[in-house]
Formats: sequence, C-alpha cells, structure tokens
Amino acid sequence: MSDEVERYKYEAAMAAVEAVRPGMVVGLGHGSTAIHALREIARRLKHGELHGVQGLPCSDHVAWQAHALGIPLTTFERTAAADLTIDGADELTEFCDAIKGGGGALLTEKIVHQNSRRIILVADHTKLSARLGGRCALPVEVAIFGWQAQRRFMEALGAEAVLRTEDSGEPFVTEQGHYILDCRFESMGDIAALSKKLDGRAGVMEHGLFLGLAHEARVAGPEGVRTLSRG
Amino acid sequence: MSDEVERYKYEAAMAAVEAVRPGMVVGLGHGSTAIHALREIARRLKHGELHGVQGLPCSDHVAWQAHALGIPLTTFERTAAADLTIDGADELTEFCDAIKGGGGALLTEKIVHQNSRRIILVADHTKLSARLGGRCALPVEVAIFGWQAQRRFMEALGAEAVLRTEDSGEPFVTEQGHYILDCRFESMGDIAALSKKLDGRAGVMEHGLFLGLAHEARVAGPEGVRTLSRG
Repeated sequence: MSDEVERYKYEAAMAAVEAVRPGMVVGLGHGSTAIHALREIARRLKHGELHGVQGLPCSDHVAWQAHALGIPLTTFERTAAADLTIDGADELTEFCDAIKGGGGALLTEKIVHQNSRRIILVADHTKLSARLGGRCALPVEVAIFGWQAQRRFMEALGAEAVLRTEDSGEPFVTEQGHYILDCRFESMGDIAALSKKLDGRAGVMEHGLFLGLAHEARVAGPEGVRTLSRG
Repeated sequence: MSDEVERYKYEAAMAAVEAVRPGMVVGLGHGSTAIHALREIARRLKHGELHGVQGLPCSDHVAWQAHALGIPLTTFERTAAADLTIDGADELTEFCDAIKGGGGALLTEKIVHQNSRRIILVADHTKLSARLGGRCALPVEVAIFGWQAQRRFMEALGAEAVLRTEDSGEPFVTEQGHYILDCRFESMGDIAALSKKLDGRAGVMEHGLFLGLAHEARVAGPEGVRTLSRG
C-alpha cells in the first residue's frame, strides 16, 4: 500500500466524519479505510468537538478498537438502528453499489447496513469501478457444513472459487464461524440476479454484493474528495 | 405423542425406504420421523436386503446416529449430491411445500435438500395443512450478532418472534452456531414473497420455508399411507 493511497483513505474518512452529529448512533465499519473514521470520531470526542456519540460496531474486532479508543458502544439489544454508518468498500460504482468482504466481516457489516438510516462509503479512488467484479473477487461467506457444495455452486455460476486461508494454510474462519470463498468471475452478468441467486442458496450465509444499501460515498484521489450519491 | 401418531410416522418412513436402491447416496433427515427411515436402512443393510448405500447426514446429530447403526457415511467433500433424501416435515401441503426446523437443523437440512436429486418427505397425517403456518411457528435461524434486529424485523413482518431456549433457559444454539426465532404469524400472506424477503435479509442464516424442494411425500394416517407429489 503506497503512502499516497493511505492518504486518500484518510481524506475520504475525514470527509465522512463531517456528517457525524452529537448524539448520533454511528455504525463503525471494519477495514483499513473505516478505521480512519473511527480514530477521528474518537479524537473529536476526546477534545469535546463531538459529544453523546455511541458506536455500533460492524464486528467484534472493531468493537475492541473502538473501546480501546474510548468510544462508547451500543448494540442491537439497546438500539434499533444506526443514524449513520461509515464503512469502506473493496470496489464501488458511481451509484454507491459495492463489493465488500475483503476484511472478512461482510455478514456483520451487512447486518449493520440493513439497520442504518444513512450509509456513507469511504474509499480511495482506485476502488471505483464501472462494473462490479472488475477489480476484486466476490467474497461469499458459507456454512462450514457442506461448504464444498457451495464451491461447486459458485463454479456452476461461472466463478473460480477459492477457499480463503490464513497464512498457516488453515481455512480462515469468520467471527460468526463460517468460511469464505473468494469468487472471481470473468463477468458477473446481471448483478442483481446473481445477488438473488446467492440470497436463495442455503449454506451461503452472506455475500459481498452490497446493492442499493449505501446512500452516499466519499472517494478521495489526486483531485480531492468527490461525493457520490445513490440517486 | 400418542402411540398411534408414532406408528403413522413409522409407516410413512417405511413406505419411503422402499425407494432406496442399492448403491444410492441417501440424504438422512434429522427428526423423529426420519429416524425411522434411518433405522430401517440400517436394518436392511445389516440383513443384506440392501447394499452399497451411503448416508449423507442432514446434521452432525444424525451422522452420529447413522454411524452408531453401521450406515457408511459420505460428505459433500466426496459427493456432489444425494440420489434420494428422506426427511420429515413439521407441516406440509398436498403439493409438498413444507415448514421444517422444529428439530433445529433447518440450515443443514436445506443444504442437503438443495443438493438432492429426489426428496421424499415423511410425515403422519396430522402434519398436513391447507396453508403453511396454520399448524406451527416458522423457525428462522439467525446470526447471534445482532439477533435482536432480526426479531424486530420478524415483528415488522407481523410475526410474534420468540427466541428458542433450552430447558435451562439459555438460548438454543444450532450446530452451525446460530440462534432460532420461532415466528408465529396470524397469516403468512404470500408465502413465496415472505421466503424471498427472508432470503434477502442479512443475519437470517436460513428459514424453515421449504418451497418447491421436495418432489414427493409419504403421509400415513388411519386410512393408510398416501403418496403426494409436487406435480
């Protein structure tokens, strides 16, 4: 990762944090861009530039980070929805559709997104894509029981499906106890139809297509920070 | 459970086992009716009335039972699909649509069903229903992360949603590490539409609507065993 790309990630996250207001419940995304937003929210709380904010973490990992930085946390036990969620994307379109899951938290992120009043994606400009699937593989989270059947299913849909592993070679296991298949398509074809097929498949616990969820995005690059909007 | 209902369960299972042929991979359902089929398959193998059959268990629990009775087992690592699956239902229609999940294995059962060439449901006559949801609650398996958000979602769909618990009062946890919400609807309305809504919901790991999956059913009652067909 170049310093330049890291700076764009930081700038996109800073722009998104401008939307955080006192008293909000803020969905805290998992990943290398969203972490900049989390740090900035913590900084503003510490310096009294914000108050009354509660974080709704998108993963246990993020919960620990937020807790360590002093952000008060809430959960779905006490809160029905986030007022605003700031989260990264591995690939996104001008219309704020995205592929997520590179960090392995796609299931819990999508749970938070589906329970958020407003979602702002944050990304550096290299993540922009005219057509999803051009840049990165689609992560598909699968039940460990019968996971090989899901690999065959993804292959039948035209993907090269690779079980995600740790450096040790052992399968990567998500926080919710599932495997991930990283599925590279030559072309995903009709993306909405693919999303529905995966939704209807038993054993596919979640997939990385985040369609029609995010309202806006902040994308930073050499020309500054652009604001994208769904509609 | 009356002895009479137990006898009908047995008779339905016996009728289904007639379809098992030598050399088949047989999906072995979880639950009090399917267990009769499992025992009969084991008996026939032991007495040489069947040979070359391999079981593809619908849960770890069933795998242990089948193993204890001497049925050779296979998995999705070695087998792409079951030739025939015999499984129970908590409620079923004349067209072989069903509600399953009373035993808590709905996710793994649906994985096996979606990878079966032929499925025969087995049930006693009290499980027949003109309209699904009339007899029993719909089990919805949910991720533990944010499960309260799924309860609110089910309530917004008109259900009374109760977290399934053990006798101890602790939440029941499925073999795949999720909770179950037992959702009682006054009316499920358009059942296919409800199924799609649940499919598209992050955090709903699976639901008990098994629509268009089973090909046939054997339903036993006072008038003998009826054969139902999807048609």
